[in-house]
Amino acid sequence: MKQAEKVRVFALGGVGEVGKNMYVVEVDEQIFVIDAGLMFPEDEMLGIDIVIPDISYLVENEARIQGIFLTHGHEDHIGAIAYVLRKITAPVYATKLTLALVEEKLKEHGVTTKAERVEVRSDTQLSFKKAKISFFQTNHSIPDSIGISIETSQGAIVYTGDFKFDQTPVGMARVDFGKMAQIGEKGVLCLLSDSTNAEKPGYTGSEAVVGQEISDVIYNAPGRVIVACFASNITRIQQVLNAAKDHKRKVAIVSRNMHKIIDIAARLGYLHIDEKMMVPVYEVDRYPDRDLVILTTGNQGEPMAALARMAKQTHKYVNIKEGDTVIVASSPMPGHELFVSKTIDALYRAGANVVYGQRKVHVSGHGYQEELKLMLNLMRPKYFIPVHGEYRMQKAHAKLAQAVGISEDRIFLIDKGDVIEFRGGHARHGGKVPYGNILIDGLGIGDVGNIVLRDRRLLSQDGIMIVVVTLSKEEKRIIAGPEIISRGFVYVRESEILLEESVKIVKDIVTKCMQDYVIEWSSLKTNIRDALNQYLFEKTKRKPMILPIIMEI
Amino acid sequence: MKQAEKVRVFALGGVGEVGKNMYVVEVDEQIFVIDAGLMFPEDEMLGIDIVIPDISYLVENEARIQGIFLTHGHEDHIGAIAYVLRKITAPVYATKLTLALVEEKLKEHGVTTKAERVEVRSDTQLSFKKAKISFFQTNHSIPDSIGISIETSQGAIVYTGDFKFDQTPVGMARVDFGKMAQIGEKGVLCLLSDSTNAEKPGYTGSEAVVGQEISDVIYNAPGRVIVACFASNITRIQQVLNAAKDHKRKVAIVSRNMHKIIDIAARLGYLHIDEKMMVPVYEVDRYPDRDLVILTTGNQGEPMAALARMAKQTHKYVNIKEGDTVIVASSPMPGHELFVSKTIDALYRAGANVVYGQRKVHVSGHGYQEELKLMLNLMRPKYFIPVHGEYRMQKAHAKLAQAVGISEDRIFLIDKGDVIEFRGGHARHGGKVPYGNILIDGLGIGDVGNIVLRDRRLLSQDGIMIVVVTLSKEEKRIIAGPEIISRGFVYVRESEILLEESVKIVKDIVTKCMQDYVIEWSSLKTNIRDALNQYLFEKTKRKPMILPIIMEI
Repeated sequence: MKQAEKVRVFALGGVGEVGKNMYVVEVDEQIFVIDAGLMFPEDEMLGIDIVIPDISYLVENEARIQGIFLTHGHEDHIGAIAYVLRKITAPVYATKLTLALVEEKLKEHGVTTKAERVEVRSDTQLSFKKAKISFFQTNHSIPDSIGISIETSQGAIVYTGDFKFDQTPVGMARVDFGKMAQIGEKGVLCLLSDSTNAEKPGYTGSEAVVGQEISDVIYNAPGRVIVACFASNITRIQQVLNAAKDHKRKVAIVSRNMHKIIDIAARLGYLHIDEKMMVPVYEVDRYPDRDLVILTTGNQGEPMAALARMAKQTHKYVNIKEGDTVIVASSPMPGHELFVSKTIDALYRAGANVVYGQRKVHVSGHGYQEELKLMLNLMRPKYFIPVHGEYRMQKAHAKLAQAVGISEDRIFLIDKGDVIEFRGGHARHGGKVPYGNILIDGLGIGDVGNIVLRDRRLLSQDGIMIVVVTLSKEEKRIIAGPEIISRGFVYVRESEILLEESVKIVKDIVTKCMQDYVIEWSSLKTNIRDALNQYLFEKTKRKPMILPIIMEI
Repeated sequence: MKQAEKVRVFALGGVGEVGKNMYVVEVDEQIFVIDAGLMFPEDEMLGIDIVIPDISYLVENEARIQGIFLTHGHEDHIGAIAYVLRKITAPVYATKLTLALVEEKLKEHGVTTKAERVEVRSDTQLSFKKAKISFFQTNHSIPDSIGISIETSQGAIVYTGDFKFDQTPVGMARVDFGKMAQIGEKGVLCLLSDSTNAEKPGYTGSEAVVGQEISDVIYNAPGRVIVACFASNITRIQQVLNAAKDHKRKVAIVSRNMHKIIDIAARLGYLHIDEKMMVPVYEVDRYPDRDLVILTTGNQGEPMAALARMAKQTHKYVNIKEGDTVIVASSPMPGHELFVSKTIDALYRAGANVVYGQRKVHVSGHGYQEELKLMLNLMRPKYFIPVHGEYRMQKAHAKLAQAVGISEDRIFLIDKGDVIEFRGGHARHGGKVPYGNILIDGLGIGDVGNIVLRDRRLLSQDGIMIVVVTLSKEEKRIIAGPEIISRGFVYVRESEILLEESVKIVKDIVTKCMQDYVIEWSSLKTNIRDALNQYLFEKTKRKPMILPIIMEI
C-alpha cells in the first residue's frame, strides 16, 4: 500500500530574529530550499562580521535538494548564497535581478560552482516529481520580489517573501492580487508570511509619497544634497535620480557597493539613468553646490556608516559643510538606533540640515497589520506559520491571524529547527533538525565559537593582565621575570604600585611552589590567577583576564 | 569707578548628551553650581560603569562656590554628588526628597563631608551677595522637582530642571504657573531649558492616563502582574500600589534599590503605602497568582535588567511563567533599544503577556514641543540656551525658541565648557573652561582613559596574540620559547597550523636579530609585530592585538 504523502516545513533561519532567512519545505524525499540570507551580528557577537545559518542538514541531505528558490535580492535573503554554494550544489531559481545580484556575490567571494542558475518570472511554472511550483509578484523595497507557492497533493505551502501592498508602487510591477486570490482559492495548506511589521497598526506608506518628499527637499535645498539609503533600494535610488533631474542637478554616487548594484540594475532595465547627469565623485568640486546631489551608502550597504565618516570629515571624497542638506532615506537597523542618533548629531554639528524621521523620506518595505491581514484573507490558509521576525513579531502576527479567523491550534510559533509535519492535510509537530548560527569573522567561517566570544567579552570589559616568568626546572629558581604586562585594564603610568605589588605576589607564589619536591605546574598557574584576581578586585573592583605564562628551560 | 557686573554661564555636562547634567552660573566672584548628575556609559565605553563630569574647574575655584543646587532626585541630576563632595566642600541646597536621596547616596559611597545640607521649598528665597535665588515648582516623573532662578542685576538666569506641564499630575504639587509668569514678568536675562523632547510635536501625556491603564491591565490579568519601572519613579510606583489595592492584590517589591527609595519616599510622605497589602518577596509563593502584583527594577534602577533575569529563569525570587502579565512602565534609555526588544522577546517566550509601547503604561516626564514653547512664553527670556539633550535636540529646541520670537543671535547652542558671558545685559562668547568625561570603572575614578578604552575596543574585536620568548643576551640564543598564546582570536584546536607557523616566523626573526652585533630590542618587537600582523591578516583577515614579550637573562 502506498504511504500517504508527508510534507515537512521548517526554518533554518529567520524566525526568532530579523535576518538570515532560510526556509525548507520537504515533500516526501524532495527538498525545496527557500532563501539563503545573512544576518548582521548582534551586539554581543564581538568582532563578528556576519552570521549565516547552520546548513548541516542541507549538506547531509544534498542529494535530495531540488533547488534553492530566492524571493528577492536583499542581503537577509541572498547574503549567505556564496557560503551555501560552496558546501552544496543545487540549482538556484530566482528572478532576473536577484540572479544578477547572486552572480555578483559569487564573483566577490571567488566561488565557482556548477550549480545551475534558472531565471524565473512571476508567471513561471515548474514541475517536480512531488510538487508544482509557481510564483506571485509582490511589492517590496527592491524590484523583482516574488512570493512562492509549492503545490502538494495536500494543498500549497506558500511563502510570501518580504512584501507590502503598495497601490502606487514606483517603477515596479503591480502586486498580482488575482494570482494570489487564485492560489488561495485553490487551497493553501500552510502560509508562511513576513512578520516584520506585525506590531504596527494600519498600512505602511506608498513609495510614491517618498518620491514627492525627496523632490521637495532637493528643490528647497540651498546647497548640496546628500542622500543616504540602502544600496539595494533601487526604487529609492530611481526616485532620487528623477528628483535630481527635475531640479537640474548632477548626481554623483559615492560607494563602490552602490555603484555595482546600480550598474546591474541599469543594465537589466530596472533603473533608468540619464548618463549626462552623472558625474564621477572625484569631480564634484567642479560643480556649484546647488547643482549637486550625492547618493551614498555604507560598505555593507548600511547607509549611516558613510555619513558618519562624512560628518567626521574623514571621508575620502565628500565631507559635510555648512549649507549641506542630508536626507536619511532609510530606517535604522535594529540595534543601530544609538549610532544613527549620534551620526545625525554629528551631521548637525558639521553644519548640515538633516532630514529624517519627521518627514516621509522613508517608508517601510514590509506591510503593516492591515496588509498582513489582507494577505491572510487572500490566501485563506488552513495552517499558518508567522516567519521573518523576532518572536514577539511572530506572536503579534499570530494574533492577527486569529483576528481573521484562523484558530489558535492551527498557528505554529516555530523556532529555528522546529519541524511542522503535514499528513492527510493535518499538521503536527515533527521533531527538530540541526540548526544554529555560523559566525563569520574575516576569512573564518564558524571558527569563532562561544569560547572565543566569551574571551572577547571578558577582554572588552576589564582588559587583560599577562604574567610571564621563566623558570629553571633543574635549578628550581626563577631565571627571568616575573614580568607583568596589562592591556585595557588600568593606565599603567598611574598604577605602578598596583603592578609592583602584583609582581611581588607572583614571585612569592612561584618561589613557594618551587620548594615543593614535585612542582605542580597546573596548580601554580591556578594559584597565580586566584591570588591576582583577589588582589586586583580588592584594589580596583575590576576583573581583568589573568593569563599566567610559565616558561621552563 | 565700579566695574559692571559680569555673569558667566556654562555647562560641565548635560549638553551634547543625555545625562550628567551640571550647569554653572558665576556672578562676578560668586559661583552657583546647579545639579551634579551622572551618565550611563555609551556603547564604545567598554567596561565602564558610570561617567561623571570633569569638575577640575570647580576644584580650582572651590573657595568661590556658594552652593550646589539640585533640582530633583534623578541619577542624571544627583548621581555624581558623592564624587563631587569628595573633592569639594560646598553647601547643598535641595528639596526634602532630593536631599534624602543625596544622603542615601553619600552613605552608600561611604562619603563623609562637612558640606552643609540646606532644605529648600519652592517658596524659599535665598540671598547671596551677588544674587537672589528663588525656585519654582515643576512637574516631572519624581516629586519635589523644582526650577531655579538666579536673580542678578542684569536680570535672572533661569534653569527649568526637567519638566513637563501635567494638568492632572498624580500625588504631586501642581506646576506654579503664576510664579513662573512672575519671574518672566520681572525679567529673565537667560533661560536654560530641558531639550529632551524638543523633537516631539504636541504635548506629552498626563501621568493620570498611565494610572488608569495600569489599573485596567491589573484588573484583566489572569495571573501575577509584574510591573517594571525606574526605581525613582515614585509617582508611577504610587499608581501601581493604588491599582493593586483597588483590585485587592498584595504587592511585593523585588529590588533593594527600589526598596530603599520607597522607604525614603514613604517616610517623608511622598508615597502612601498600606502596610497590610505588602508582602516580602520570599513569601510570594504563599499567595495565589491572581492576588499578586510584583514591582521590580534593575540594579542601577534600570528596569529591564531584572526582567531579563526573570525571563531567563535566573532571578533569585521571581521567574516568569505561563499566565504572568508583565507591564513595562518605562521607555528604553538611549542605546538600550535592542536589549529592551530582546528582553520583551524573552518574556513572551517564557509565557508572559507583555504590555508595553502600544498601551499608555508609560508617559515621558519631559515636555514636548508645545510645553517647551509654553515655558519660553512664560519666561520670555532675552537670551536662550537649550540644555539637557543631544546637539540635535538642542538644535530643535532653538528652532522652537525662534518660532516664539527669540531671534537667532540670542540663542546659544553651547557645548560643554563653552562660556556665555553677560555684561550690561548683553551676551557674548566668553571662552572655554576645562571640561570632560571622567570614567568610573569599579573603584577607579578617571584612571580609564582613551588608551585603555582603545585597547579594550581592539581586544573586543579580534582578541589578542601573545608571543613570549626568553633570550640569553650573552650567549645570543633563545633559552625558552617562542611560546604563543591567544585569547579571543581563533579557536585554538582548529588553528594549530596557524599557531605553529607563527612560532616559526617569530623564531626566524629573533634568530636573525641576534646575529647582529648590537641587538636592537625595540626593533625586534616591532619586527615581530609587523610580521605576525601581516601573516595573520593574510590568513584570517583579522587583526588581533599582538603583544611580543622578550625576557632576557
